[in-house]
Amino acid sequence: MCSITIIGAGNVGAHLATALYAAGYVIRQLYSRHAERLTALQHLCQAGTTTDIHDLLPDSTLYIIAVSDDAIVEVAAQLHLYPSAIVVHTSGTVPVSVLHGFQRHGIFYPLQTFTQDKKVVWANIPLIIQGSDMEVDNLLRQIAACLSPHIYRLNDEQRQIVHLAAVFVNNFSNYLMTTAQQLLQRHQLPFELLQPLILETAQKVQTQAPDTAQTGPAKRGDRTTIAKHIALLQHDPPTQALYQLLSELIMARYQ
Amino acid sequence: MCSITIIGAGNVGAHLATALYAAGYVIRQLYSRHAERLTALQHLCQAGTTTDIHDLLPDSTLYIIAVSDDAIVEVAAQLHLYPSAIVVHTSGTVPVSVLHGFQRHGIFYPLQTFTQDKKVVWANIPLIIQGSDMEVDNLLRQIAACLSPHIYRLNDEQRQIVHLAAVFVNNFSNYLMTTAQQLLQRHQLPFELLQPLILETAQKVQTQAPDTAQTGPAKRGDRTTIAKHIALLQHDPPTQALYQLLSELIMARYQ
Repeated sequence: MCSITIIGAGNVGAHLATALYAAGYVIRQLYSRHAERLTALQHLCQAGTTTDIHDLLPDSTLYIIAVSDDAIVEVAAQLHLYPSAIVVHTSGTVPVSVLHGFQRHGIFYPLQTFTQDKKVVWANIPLIIQGSDMEVDNLLRQIAACLSPHIYRLNDEQRQIVHLAAVFVNNFSNYLMTTAQQLLQRHQLPFELLQPLILETAQKVQTQAPDTAQTGPAKRGDRTTIAKHIALLQHDPPTQALYQLLSELIMARYQ
Repeated sequence: MCSITIIGAGNVGAHLATALYAAGYVIRQLYSRHAERLTALQHLCQAGTTTDIHDLLPDSTLYIIAVSDDAIVEVAAQLHLYPSAIVVHTSGTVPVSVLHGFQRHGIFYPLQTFTQDKKVVWANIPLIIQGSDMEVDNLLRQIAACLSPHIYRLNDEQRQIVHLAAVFVNNFSNYLMTTAQQLLQRHQLPFELLQPLILETAQKVQTQAPDTAQTGPAKRGDRTTIAKHIALLQHDPPTQALYQLLSELIMARYQ
């Protein structure tokens, strides 16, 4: 049976550890610099834990590096493992080549935003994998299949494109929501006013392509409303600039 | 019993007509310039229909003008009704003053994006109302309460702020999704990769304020990833500018 060591106990590491344990895998060891993150996980996954990376046992089948992007290289350099060990990272953007020091390596990138203490429906999550050879590929695919039926084998460039696209629909969309929240707050209006609309906007594109779902003043070329909105934002020139740019892009596309 | 005439059979008019009929109201007449839109609705609402605005009977209790923003004034000018008639429009942005020609008037603005043929859960929709006097206010509130428990009495300025905020979370978010879709398409990657992330992004802010849910390269101040992403967008300078502006705004907020 394949045994797994998970390096990092942030949102991705913690959710992966519990999901893989629930899928029947042995979570051999969990590593985090933060002891407090390990305490709860240890019991959930029946795993050994350590806060010293040099204490990691070298003979697990798979090592999943689930640390922040800029720490992957440093963490990888400190791993001294059996040559048969497979080492993967979970980043959308770091090239697989940073793991070339390991003969068998790859990517295991779950495309989702994880929140601490919020349950994850793994069956809905696209898992993006990449193995250094067919055998590694197959093992990663087999493990992924225990979590989700949505498995994609992508190369570095494709994965980076997906990650960039994800920045638009997750990070940037969330910033637009923050902007809306601030605007409402400034006028003592509750954010709950927008929550159903936000949900429906997301639900719509589950069955309809977003380019056909576009509505609003810019789509209609309604310059009167656009001018009114820009005037309403005069207290906040950066947001005004954002409104202007987005409206121009939408008009350029549809008008 | 209060009888209702609905003027306009686009998405808002059609959804309102069927919902109010289902709530037990008499839909006296439906007006649309487009005869084909009336045919299906007529049977759904047991309503009289007309494509000639001058055929509207003058003695309904309530007239709901659900036409596009820039047609409201023109439509209103063609209505010759009993003085007791209440006339409202459904726009987020047009001032209530365009209805001052009617003694009793107001706003009935459902804050949601409606799609033809897609079922609407009215109970989740915020309904924004405004009446020219207390009696009109009460009647609109009573009708709204048959559709949804989420009723807000807002003035013109507040309603316009809500509409502006809605443009950010609906129209602009949708445009970000379109951008992501185009980017994936360019690399022969399916949009379905992003659908679960889009849904989770929306679900997150149902229980958590968006300013605390922000993640991503800009939030972390990760300039390496930002530079990489900007390079990946070099084929599309406008989208590059959008990425840059959003990243700068997020960095300014969190760094």
